[in-house]
Amino acid sequence: MRRPWSIDDPIDAYRSVRARTEALAAPLGPEDQVVQSMPEASPTKWHRAHTTWFFEEFVLAASVPDHRPVDPAHRYLFNSYYEAVGERQPRDRRGLITRPTVEEVAGYRRRVDERVEELLAQGPHPLLELGLHHEEQHQELLLMDAAHLLAQHPLRPAYAQDGVHPTAGSAGNGWIDHEGGVVEVGHDGAGFAYDNEGPRHREVLLPFRLRDRLVTSGEWIEFIDDGGYERVDLWLSDGWATVGSLGWEAPEYWRRRDGEWWVATLSGDRPVGRDEPVVHVSLYEADAFARWAGARLPTESEWEVVAREHWTGDDRPDETQFDGSVWQWTASAYLPYPGFRPAEGAVGEYNGKFMVNQHVLRGGCCATPPGHSRPTYRNFFPPASRWAFSGLRLAGDR
Amino acid sequence: MRRPWSIDDPIDAYRSVRARTEALAAPLGPEDQVVQSMPEASPTKWHRAHTTWFFEEFVLAASVPDHRPVDPAHRYLFNSYYEAVGERQPRDRRGLITRPTVEEVAGYRRRVDERVEELLAQGPHPLLELGLHHEEQHQELLLMDAAHLLAQHPLRPAYAQDGVHPTAGSAGNGWIDHEGGVVEVGHDGAGFAYDNEGPRHREVLLPFRLRDRLVTSGEWIEFIDDGGYERVDLWLSDGWATVGSLGWEAPEYWRRRDGEWWVATLSGDRPVGRDEPVVHVSLYEADAFARWAGARLPTESEWEVVAREHWTGDDRPDETQFDGSVWQWTASAYLPYPGFRPAEGAVGEYNGKFMVNQHVLRGGCCATPPGHSRPTYRNFFPPASRWAFSGLRLAGDR
Amino acid sequence: MRRPWSIDDPIDAYRSVRARTEALAAPLGPEDQVVQSMPEASPTKWHRAHTTWFFEEFVLAASVPDHRPVDPAHRYLFNSYYEAVGERQPRDRRGLITRPTVEEVAGYRRRVDERVEELLAQGPHPLLELGLHHEEQHQELLLMDAAHLLAQHPLRPAYAQDGVHPTAGSAGNGWIDHEGGVVEVGHDGAGFAYDNEGPRHREVLLPFRLRDRLVTSGEWIEFIDDGGYERVDLWLSDGWATVGSLGWEAPEYWRRRDGEWWVATLSGDRPVGRDEPVVHVSLYEADAFARWAGARLPTESEWEVVAREHWTGDDRPDETQFDGSVWQWTASAYLPYPGFRPAEGAVGEYNGKFMVNQHVLRGGCCATPPGHSRPTYRNFFPPASRWAFSGLRLAGDR
Amino acid sequence: MRRPWSIDDPIDAYRSVRARTEALAAPLGPEDQVVQSMPEASPTKWHRAHTTWFFEEFVLAASVPDHRPVDPAHRYLFNSYYEAVGERQPRDRRGLITRPTVEEVAGYRRRVDERVEELLAQGPHPLLELGLHHEEQHQELLLMDAAHLLAQHPLRPAYAQDGVHPTAGSAGNGWIDHEGGVVEVGHDGAGFAYDNEGPRHREVLLPFRLRDRLVTSGEWIEFIDDGGYERVDLWLSDGWATVGSLGWEAPEYWRRRDGEWWVATLSGDRPVGRDEPVVHVSLYEADAFARWAGARLPTESEWEVVAREHWTGDDRPDETQFDGSVWQWTASAYLPYPGFRPAEGAVGEYNGKFMVNQHVLRGGCCATPPGHSRPTYRNFFPPASRWAFSGLRLAGDR
Repeated sequence: MRRPWSIDDPIDAYRSVRARTEALAAPLGPEDQVVQSMPEASPTKWHRAHTTWFFEEFVLAASVPDHRPVDPAHRYLFNSYYEAVGERQPRDRRGLITRPTVEEVAGYRRRVDERVEELLAQGPHPLLELGLHHEEQHQELLLMDAAHLLAQHPLRPAYAQDGVHPTAGSAGNGWIDHEGGVVEVGHDGAGFAYDNEGPRHREVLLPFRLRDRLVTSGEWIEFIDDGGYERVDLWLSDGWATVGSLGWEAPEYWRRRDGEWWVATLSGDRPVGRDEPVVHVSLYEADAFARWAGARLPTESEWEVVAREHWTGDDRPDETQFDGSVWQWTASAYLPYPGFRPAEGAVGEYNGKFMVNQHVLRGGCCATPPGHSRPTYRNFFPPASRWAFSGLRLAGDR
Repeated sequence: MRRPWSIDDPIDAYRSVRARTEALAAPLGPEDQVVQSMPEASPTKWHRAHTTWFFEEFVLAASVPDHRPVDPAHRYLFNSYYEAVGERQPRDRRGLITRPTVEEVAGYRRRVDERVEELLAQGPHPLLELGLHHEEQHQELLLMDAAHLLAQHPLRPAYAQDGVHPTAGSAGNGWIDHEGGVVEVGHDGAGFAYDNEGPRHREVLLPFRLRDRLVTSGEWIEFIDDGGYERVDLWLSDGWATVGSLGWEAPEYWRRRDGEWWVATLSGDRPVGRDEPVVHVSLYEADAFARWAGARLPTESEWEVVAREHWTGDDRPDETQFDGSVWQWTASAYLPYPGFRPAEGAVGEYNGKFMVNQHVLRGGCCATPPGHSRPTYRNFFPPASRWAFSGLRLAGDR
Repeated sequence: MRRPWSIDDPIDAYRSVRARTEALAAPLGPEDQVVQSMPEASPTKWHRAHTTWFFEEFVLAASVPDHRPVDPAHRYLFNSYYEAVGERQPRDRRGLITRPTVEEVAGYRRRVDERVEELLAQGPHPLLELGLHHEEQHQELLLMDAAHLLAQHPLRPAYAQDGVHPTAGSAGNGWIDHEGGVVEVGHDGAGFAYDNEGPRHREVLLPFRLRDRLVTSGEWIEFIDDGGYERVDLWLSDGWATVGSLGWEAPEYWRRRDGEWWVATLSGDRPVGRDEPVVHVSLYEADAFARWAGARLPTESEWEVVAREHWTGDDRPDETQFDGSVWQWTASAYLPYPGFRPAEGAVGEYNGKFMVNQHVLRGGCCATPPGHSRPTYRNFFPPASRWAFSGLRLAGDR
Repeated sequence: MRRPWSIDDPIDAYRSVRARTEALAAPLGPEDQVVQSMPEASPTKWHRAHTTWFFEEFVLAASVPDHRPVDPAHRYLFNSYYEAVGERQPRDRRGLITRPTVEEVAGYRRRVDERVEELLAQGPHPLLELGLHHEEQHQELLLMDAAHLLAQHPLRPAYAQDGVHPTAGSAGNGWIDHEGGVVEVGHDGAGFAYDNEGPRHREVLLPFRLRDRLVTSGEWIEFIDDGGYERVDLWLSDGWATVGSLGWEAPEYWRRRDGEWWVATLSGDRPVGRDEPVVHVSLYEADAFARWAGARLPTESEWEVVAREHWTGDDRPDETQFDGSVWQWTASAYLPYPGFRPAEGAVGEYNGKFMVNQHVLRGGCCATPPGHSRPTYRNFFPPASRWAFSGLRLAGDR
């Protein structure tokens, strides 16, 4: 879907994004909003406060000479990882911050909103757009983290009756061929993009092909039934060690009940839909599945040069499922592009310092805000991560 | 203080205890009530629900033929450790149960209260008294766990302006002598006691003496200043290893600020009061302090035979601080008394199965409900535990 | 068996003990002697060097004015835990000391032996007797640790064809009754004893009885077959957690092969002998077995007052298996006796600082040097330990 | 230096490589050869036996119809990670295999050597060359692992008086420029190479430059003195976490003594040589140093296209230190080249399954056998590894 706001109307854009966060948090009570279900996940309340702090720190404090912090403690409590800003609450202890309350955080949001809107009334702000995209990222994280929290509950309650989850796509079963050669990849500078999407640069590709749809849960059940989680020859060495130490037998959130696979989703516990894209698999599992299927994962460049031809980004059905369903693991480690240089100052910490021990995912997912992603977008997670809405598309040589 | 209820008036007793739990929870919002700050601590909400489940399981379900559970899931969610009752939520994952909400738990309490009161209207119930003492234990745990949670917050907020903490006692500085010999220890069967307090039995004591007051925070600062945490010769071997691995330099919740010691309490962050009993020290620290002071910890029998002569249990000031200030570590491992046999059935799991790797504490503390403790009461914690209101009294040979 | 040496002939005693250590090490090659198979175990080479260092430090250096260390590095490398002596190689890194070589350690022993014998030629030495008993303790540890190392090898090789292991005892099946009352326990000061065996003191016992033999491996197989390792009601809470986390299904070193139980011993892999005493069980397992059998473990005092009536200590067959077969877990935590005071100086660290988190074992075992133990001897290990030659005898109330 | 053997003379080649292994092991006694100093390192004895097993399994057993194993247990004991061959001794428990002894392993080597030479007398063998390169890799690992073991000893003994360590190189201080463009990288198929070095393929490079020498220990001391290990802005996020958790303050094996830096080497403890290449640094440290120096690490393609112009591979001094001094961390994750396919069968496990969570190092080091490396050689280690002879060369954009 198209992005429902434009940076050309800053106040409207700001209100639109901020309101969407509040709408996403609304189905969650104070108890749900404060708990941290694992070190990598953050409480809803923290997401709401942190995105607000981001505007307070990088927009208000940076631009309003006499800005007085709403609460000086927020700088410590709600900084995520900006070392240049100072000390902060350790990530794995965000769930211990029971104060300010959820209601107080709502008040914090309102007070910052008032001031930002006052500022925007005077004209555009250079970091507004980054702040809005940043908040949209946290909208997706909020849903991912809520899904994780609720899945830990023995009753696997729903976030909402119509909570998002990937839906069945096209019944396509073919390949999209590409002849390879010297191609250009990376963002060309038109419109917003994160620093890690550039610079645009040339690469050489061999001829290859990509499947015209995502791997489905039905195919994944075949993989399980064929002993996929028990055959060492299918796995990377680190992947096999992880299967053993974590006892993986199926994607995250799957549970077998009376011979049927069920999956905890934001809509609650549901039977696994065989035609739906498989989701909540790690890079290790995606790689093993591809080997089992006699295929491989695409590199991020292969993915990008094909996806930009098929990207819809609007209301037309995306027949090839390049955006809007599940993030797609690639064979590419998350590394800087040739000539990459992080931005100056604290916002330069946004991406560059995470460029090790992670793999790139491309596309977007059902939890991604409308219009937030693009063909050059580089998402990334460690290879054992499963709580993102992560699936895969097969590739092969020609 | 005296116990404010009598089992002879069951409905009044029940209402009194149940109301006190709700009053203790009242200063805590939903966010505070749901978070688990460490594996050993439980959320307030869980304490409120678990004590209710205890009545539902051992009083209602055991005695009302057509009892229908308020919610069948509660048996799984709010069982603590009764293996005979069935599977249960793992202890270290109690903080993940965001549902039922705090408000729903309040409703659960009301519904069980109605039914229990109906049942009690028909006559006394054999497990009512155990259930009330059990809930009183959780009242103390609720405060201990809340204190731990709030102390993890970087701002160390208060539970309440007048939240309990041990207060300065007598200025006594003498010893209470005892000539030893064959003594009787353990509960004699008059009035309520837990199974682990009996059978009453004889022991032989050498002549000994106990200090007539608790060790104070001022003395503890002397210990610190004399290198107490750095002198290996003062420590048990396991204690020294713990000092090193956990980096202990002072009691739990102490923090040095501008050369002064501050302590996080239920009343918030306060300067350490030198005349107050030291609290939140482990058995290891208590033992090392005693060695430093040229003394030793009392055995639980030594403590008991002296304490029963000085026990007040009412409104008279307890000049010797045997009850109502801080729990007092003893040199005794927590083991069954001669002839001990646990009760039959699930309630037999109450105490016996924990009789290893723990040390006995005696007395009671500022967070103990009025009248809950007695001279034969055996509290117990692992030797490295510090989050109980635990202090010490010195002993010596004569 | 009787002790083969007398302190009245110091040089002979010294030679006898020292030679026995070398004889025990002889079946082990340099590879076997250097490896540390777990943090709690020590290499054979280390035992040989440490016992030598003990004589060098506490006999030679303490008494010979111009003593020059054989090698100054030994004080660091081969001190075990004497904090008063100074820094030392961490216990869990003893297996990294590949130098000095096994041959060099033999030379170290010879050089210290020469000097000690020179000193002894001038008269008795106050710490000689402690040093000899200390070395005898390490003789047993050497065998325990070698048994552990060899059992880690997939082929489970033998230490020697006739390596010690407990042998079948009497076919007794009765009880030894004791009327209880005020008894005296602890060492009375005649002959050598460790500090932890005294002071002798009075205790009150209820009437009780002890089995006239040890629990056998055949009985243990019944326990296993009856689901002993799967029935939570039989276990202490910490014991059950250990069963789960370590996956215990049988005593240490047991392995099922084609439906039969085999056990790795110092004589190699052998079928479990049903009439032999069970060995290599933890306190947790011993306690669970006793509960399963409708009995309990004896306290150390109960054990002692009976054992001293049945102790053989010589070549007569010990029909009641109180000494010389397996160490027997007691229900008693390892704590100081009333009035206990550790010795002054470094040797005061011998016992006292370990008096927490351990349980007492009594008797002696097949690996204990002849005459080394006595009815008051207090051995001790943490409750989850299994690599000692530890078994059990049942007790009950009357 | 040139490789001292040619596959064209198979028996001579075999003897040459096998003899070199024995020569490298010779300075180490049985104690040194059996101990495993960390899970990632292997005992010398294991290297000697494993390389022998490789020939027995992949040459003898694969080609001699009636081959009877020298000892059937070796298949279990000395397989490294070939899942297709079967179960094996876990990597982190290689140090527990005290049997066969070092002497018996020498005998194992001789018996396999006899049989292999008999086989080779009949003609060339397709896996001989791989086996020889494999054994050469283990020659380097043997030295790396021995260096690690000896550095754990508090006295930091020498492997040999002239044990290898990197020596000071050219005094160069310039840059080597490259204009970028479409280049070819990867092995072209002439001569031996591992599967991971191909296929040769095209890549696009931006203009760049490489330093004409390695970073020195003197420069590293400047980095330390400038707070390099304390400035979070210099580090990748995972790197900074590692600095904190492992307490890094300098390269592995460095220790400060009286204000001077010393380093444990195969020649023993030595003062750090300021003109020598820094060695035993992790990818994290190399990356942070490069950032501190205003430069970056080269990609493996950048490195390769320059190095092949400067590679000496013979006795001429390598002025630019591309080979033979220290392995050089690159910015490239270890991933398959386009079109990469592992070999069929067990030897296909040689490289491919490790292609995640590692970074590529290029060049070779002082411990690499003469002629073993080449410009296309891809070594790899996890980013926190430091026990390889790993250093770095700076790169920059033009």
